[in-house]
Order: sequence, then structure tokens, then C-alpha cells
Amino acid sequence: MLSEYHIGLGRKKNCMRELAAFAGARKAQIGADKVFDFSLGNPSIPAPPCVNDAIRELLELDSIEVHGYTTAAGLPSLRKAIADDFNARYGGDIRPERMYVICGAAAGLAICAKALVQPGEEAIAFAPFFTEYRVFVEGAGGVLVSVPPTAELQPDLEAFERALSEKTQMVIINTPNNPSGVVLTAETLTRLSDLLRAAEARYGHPIYLVSDEPYRELVYDGKPIPHPVNFYDDTIIDYSYSKSLSLPGERIGYLAVSSRMANGDEVYAAIAGAARTCGYVNAPSLMQRVVEKCVGQTSDIAEYKINRDLLFNGLTELGFDCVFPDGAFYIFMKTPEPDAVAFSERAKKYELILVPSNDFGVEGYVRLAYCVSADTIRRSMPAFAQLAAEYGLQKK
Amino acid sequence: MLSEYHIGLGRKKNCMRELAAFAGARKAQIGADKVFDFSLGNPSIPAPPCVNDAIRELLELDSIEVHGYTTAAGLPSLRKAIADDFNARYGGDIRPERMYVICGAAAGLAICAKALVQPGEEAIAFAPFFTEYRVFVEGAGGVLVSVPPTAELQPDLEAFERALSEKTQMVIINTPNNPSGVVLTAETLTRLSDLLRAAEARYGHPIYLVSDEPYRELVYDGKPIPHPVNFYDDTIIDYSYSKSLSLPGERIGYLAVSSRMANGDEVYAAIAGAARTCGYVNAPSLMQRVVEKCVGQTSDIAEYKINRDLLFNGLTELGFDCVFPDGAFYIFMKTPEPDAVAFSERAKKYELILVPSNDFGVEGYVRLAYCVSADTIRRSMPAFAQLAAEYGLQKK
Repeated sequence: MLSEYHIGLGRKKNCMRELAAFAGARKAQIGADKVFDFSLGNPSIPAPPCVNDAIRELLELDSIEVHGYTTAAGLPSLRKAIADDFNARYGGDIRPERMYVICGAAAGLAICAKALVQPGEEAIAFAPFFTEYRVFVEGAGGVLVSVPPTAELQPDLEAFERALSEKTQMVIINTPNNPSGVVLTAETLTRLSDLLRAAEARYGHPIYLVSDEPYRELVYDGKPIPHPVNFYDDTIIDYSYSKSLSLPGERIGYLAVSSRMANGDEVYAAIAGAARTCGYVNAPSLMQRVVEKCVGQTSDIAEYKINRDLLFNGLTELGFDCVFPDGAFYIFMKTPEPDAVAFSERAKKYELILVPSNDFGVEGYVRLAYCVSADTIRRSMPAFAQLAAEYGLQKK
Repeated sequence: MLSEYHIGLGRKKNCMRELAAFAGARKAQIGADKVFDFSLGNPSIPAPPCVNDAIRELLELDSIEVHGYTTAAGLPSLRKAIADDFNARYGGDIRPERMYVICGAAAGLAICAKALVQPGEEAIAFAPFFTEYRVFVEGAGGVLVSVPPTAELQPDLEAFERALSEKTQMVIINTPNNPSGVVLTAETLTRLSDLLRAAEARYGHPIYLVSDEPYRELVYDGKPIPHPVNFYDDTIIDYSYSKSLSLPGERIGYLAVSSRMANGDEVYAAIAGAARTCGYVNAPSLMQRVVEKCVGQTSDIAEYKINRDLLFNGLTELGFDCVFPDGAFYIFMKTPEPDAVAFSERAKKYELILVPSNDFGVEGYVRLAYCVSADTIRRSMPAFAQLAAEYGLQKK
């Protein structure tokens, strides 16, 4: 029998993609410069030069090797380079033999869900969260439990404590966060870890913290980003080069099981097994070699900071209420009416394409992806001013 | 709870990889030219020049586009190019809107298993078959039913008829075949299709034929390869560019749901949904564009034909019994003792690395991957002669 669940999923409209398609059609109609499309989290800064340089170098080598199979876990030299760089920057202790190179962070989360969550068991995510978390957990037969945020969009840890149960196997965090841009504070991570350790003791089994961190390097103003692996031993890092190297289409990243996890070898084996059942053979071989040559480098994220400041300041001056984002390339803005979908529709009148927050598990916000040109942001301000006026917002 | 199934799978030794590792160690010990490693199906012919030419051209374009996300199903222009080329060559009628570009044929099979086979339902494969078929079907919660071959290594269709049941949802064929190199004849495909249609009528539900065909272009002597999609409407093509373009590490291929499949839109949606639950976002974007520029081209497979003739003739002259392979780059040789594992062990004495057939679902054979240099084959012949002498085989 065809899987009804999969049919439904395959047919379900993705709100972001729909909005982007609408924006595309509208641009064709009235001109690209007249539409202000903040819908998609596509990096707007090119890959750093090391990427194309590395590809050119690799084309001089033996094609059979460059395009050939690698071991399923990824090239040993790549894993070593990543671990060395990570440990130097974050003071962690991750090791090549517990690293599994993957086809992007989405693949990593799907694999973790299958490895860690059995049918009927639970995973916890903190709203607002990336919509696909639910798909990965439910696709493994598990149940996703959503924990609401505080006003500052940090996890509500009292609600988290109530959400933890005997069935909890996996907890997903995402810092900096999509869709809010918020970075988890050291205080939050400390308290979260304490609660997790207490729950492990109470229920007598490990609870794995999966740290989804494709935006790890996109943090501004030199803010330190406390790394979860240094707070909690049962952590698995889920990383992607999609944003840091602007390679979202190439699908390359890694899972790293903390070297301090007591049953880490078993968890690593479960990850390898789950990857096999999903048909993952190895992450793309050319890109594995490219990443090895580019480890530690990033796209020029200074441009994103300019955008963040322009947009955040512009919107708050107009009277909109936004949570200040320390990282990623998103601003989460409170909608002046409770219905975010209605607000997003109304914004279209001014050619503003904003994603309502409902798909991220919270109501009353829109997400603005500011991975666009600074010029687009500047030119969008009169449209936002009209939208603000419609709601009678007071300029600050 | 950790999935015991996944842990076991992640820890399970892969016989081929173990043999290849043994060969590598042995080469380091006694010299690479002294070891005759027929263990792995790694293409030995470089990618055709169009691949690196295409990459160089693409590096001149906008990095944000080249390395950016594509639609989940793959670039529309790529899907059109593939469909046009396929239809021209095989007289089929596949369409871009029912094509899903995937991360290699393994991903395609894993996705089909999840989309088509529900827990407790059955999939049928014809021995000898690629070992991972079992992993994909069992990973979806299904049961893999193995049908034995005839002496010519065509499917035993009487056994197939008995294996079909109300629970059968998916049937996997692989032509040319790994590990035997055998091509399914038009007669086999006709009878197989008749049996499938009768079973569909009997059980009142579709039975999907998944045609795993990464070796489709590796057919020698100008032999025509009858295409399954022209025999049976409920066919899904699972293709990979791993062998035809010698890009196994890059993970690029496609699924195509036959345009003649009555509920093809539903099946296509289920495929899209299953891909999402596994964390597939899009096939690698640079390689999608490379394939679009190389559609219809292949590596220089004439070299494989030279190897096949050298090895087949050499082995049969020594008295070994091999099934003549029309395609792929494998020879399946009967072992002169019933225990293929024991035979493979004995062959190691002469530095011959051969894969016992047990993992492919049959006993009494070894697989020889002849994607090696012709020189390796020539130099291996004295070793095979010693092995033949040990078993008292008669030269022909």
C-alpha cells in the first residue's frame, strides 16, 4: 500500500516556497525591483574564493579518485581537519572516529531521529523551530513535543521541564535560531543541561541533545557563542556548510557524537546504520575535498550584519516590535494583529513577502530573511512605512 | 531507545569493503603489482572530459546560483534534458513532472521502499542481488522475499509466481545485473510483466516494478537492452550516473515514475514525501548542472569490454565455469567447491581477491569486478592457473 503519510507530505504545500513562487511571479509582472522578497533563507553572499579555487585544483587530480566513492563516514583526512578546527575554535573535544560526514544538516537530523527515536517515543523541540523537525521525527514514527519560548525567544525552561517524560529520547536545539536569529545564552544552556541530566537520572536512560547549528558562524558584533558540547556530554552536533560557505545546494555537513558521551560508540553505530537504511552512501566526494581545503573559512558575513542593522533599525523605528537577532540571517517580527497569516497577506499589498510564523510552531510573528541585497532593504522601507501606517503604529 | 537494528547495521562488516581493506594491506606488504584485487565495483575509467569541462564552465557563473538550493525534485531543465534523451534512446515516454532527481540509485531504492512498502508488506528481489536491497526494504519495515535464478542467472519465473502474494508491493529488477553482469532478455521481461499484471488483477492492488539500472549503458557488443518501462506500466526507473559517467562518489541519479502508471501522481507524491522524511533536500546542485551538460554521454566503456573478454576467456580456458556477462563490469564465476567463502579464502593464497556470493543471496559463486586495468587481468592469469590446478580443473 502506498504510504498515505508520505503522499500527504509530498503534496503538502510549503508556505515558504509558495511565497517565493508568488514573489517570482509578481516580479515578472511588475519588475524585480518593485517586489521585496524576504521569504527564503538562501545565502545572498557568494561562496568564499577558496571554494572555486579548491574545485579548480581538484580538477587537476585523478578523476577516478576525486569523483570516486569515499568511506561512508567521509574521508578520514576531512574528518580530522574538521575536528582540529572545531576543537581549536570552540574548545571542544570532538574526534574524527565519532564524526559522520553527511548530505547537509537536514540529512543529519533525519538520521538522528531514526537512530535515536523509536515509534511512539518522543523528541522535544523549542518553538520557534524549523518546520522539517516535525517531518523527521514523525517520519521515524516518533512524536514531536513543542516547548514554547519566553518573550525573549529563549526556551521556556519551566515548560521544558514539564515536557520531559520517560518517553523523551532526543531534544533538538538550534543556535543561532532559524527563524528568530536568537543565540542561546550560556545561562540557558547551563539550566537546560541541568534539567536534562536530572531527567536522565530520573528516567534511567540517556536523553540525547542534538545541536542543529548551520548558522554557528553567522554571529555578529563579536558575540561569543557558547557551544552546547561543552555543557552537556550526551550531545550530537549537526552541522552544515550551507550557510558558512554559502553552499546550500551542495548538501554537505557532518554529525559529531561528543567524545564525552558514555555510549557514544553505540550511538555512532546507530547513526551509521540509520544512514544506510535511508540510502546514504557517502556525502558528495568532490565537495568533501573542497570542504577539507576550506575548513575554518567562511563567506564574508559582514554583509549580513549590515543588512541586519539596516532592517532591525528600520523596522523598530517604524514602530514594529522585533526581537534583536545576534545571529543567522533572520528577523522575527511580532505582527501587529494576532493572525500572522492575515498580516502576511496584507503585507503583499505593499509587495512585501514575509513568512507567517505558524509553520515554525508559534503564532503572531513573521520571519524576514535578510539574505538579500542591502539595497532591497533600503528600498523596502517606504513599503514597511505604509504597512505600519495601516496598523496605526507609532514611529519611535 | 537506540534502535538495535540500526546499531547492528552500523556495526556489520561489509564483506566487500573488508576484502578491499585486506587487499590494500597486502599490497602495502608485498607490492601493489603482486595483488589482484577484484573486490570493488569502483569505475576504473575516468569520467568523460565533458564532466570537468562542464565544471570549469560552471565556475564562471554566479556562485550563489551554481551552489544554491534547487527545487527538491531537481532543476526543471535537467529533468527535461534527461527525459528527452531517455525517450530518444529507449523509445519510452518518461516526463519531467514525474522525475525526481536523487542522490544516487541507493537513495532512490531506499526512498521507493519507504514510499511503497508498509511495515509487514513484501518486496521481491531476484537473486543474485545487490546486498543493500535487504537493508532498504527492512529499513522500511518490510520483508524482502528472494527468488532464485535459473542456471543462466535469469529470474526463475515459476519461483517468482509462487513468491507473489497479496502482500507483494514492490518487485526489484537490476539489468544489467550486479553481481552477474547478466542482462534480462525481452522474453524474461514479457513473462515477468504478464505475471505481475495477473497478480495485480488477482490481489486488486498495484505491484510496482522498480528497475534499478545504474549499469544501463554498460552493455557490450552492440546488444540491444530491452527497457522494462516498455513492458510494464507500473514501472519506476531508478538510475544513477555513478557508472555511466564514472561519478560514484558524487551521488547523482533520478527516479522516474512511468507516465503510463495509472496512479503515478500519487506514487510520485509518496516518493517526494519519503525523500523528505529521509532528509533529502535536493541532489547536489553543481552535479545537477554537470549532468545536464553531459546528458547522453558516457565514459569510454570500450575498455571494460576489453577487460570482460580477457577475463572471461582466460577463466573459461582454465576450466572455470562463468556465466557470460553482456553488461556491467562483473563476472560471476561458479566456485569449484560448494562453499564460496572457503573458495574465496583459498584464492587469497594466490593473492586473488574475489567476493563470495553469499551476500548476494546465492551460494556457490564468486564475483569478480573487472573495473581494473587490463594489465592486472593479464598478470593475474598465472595465479588463476594455480588456483585451477589446486582444484584439478581441466583446461579447455
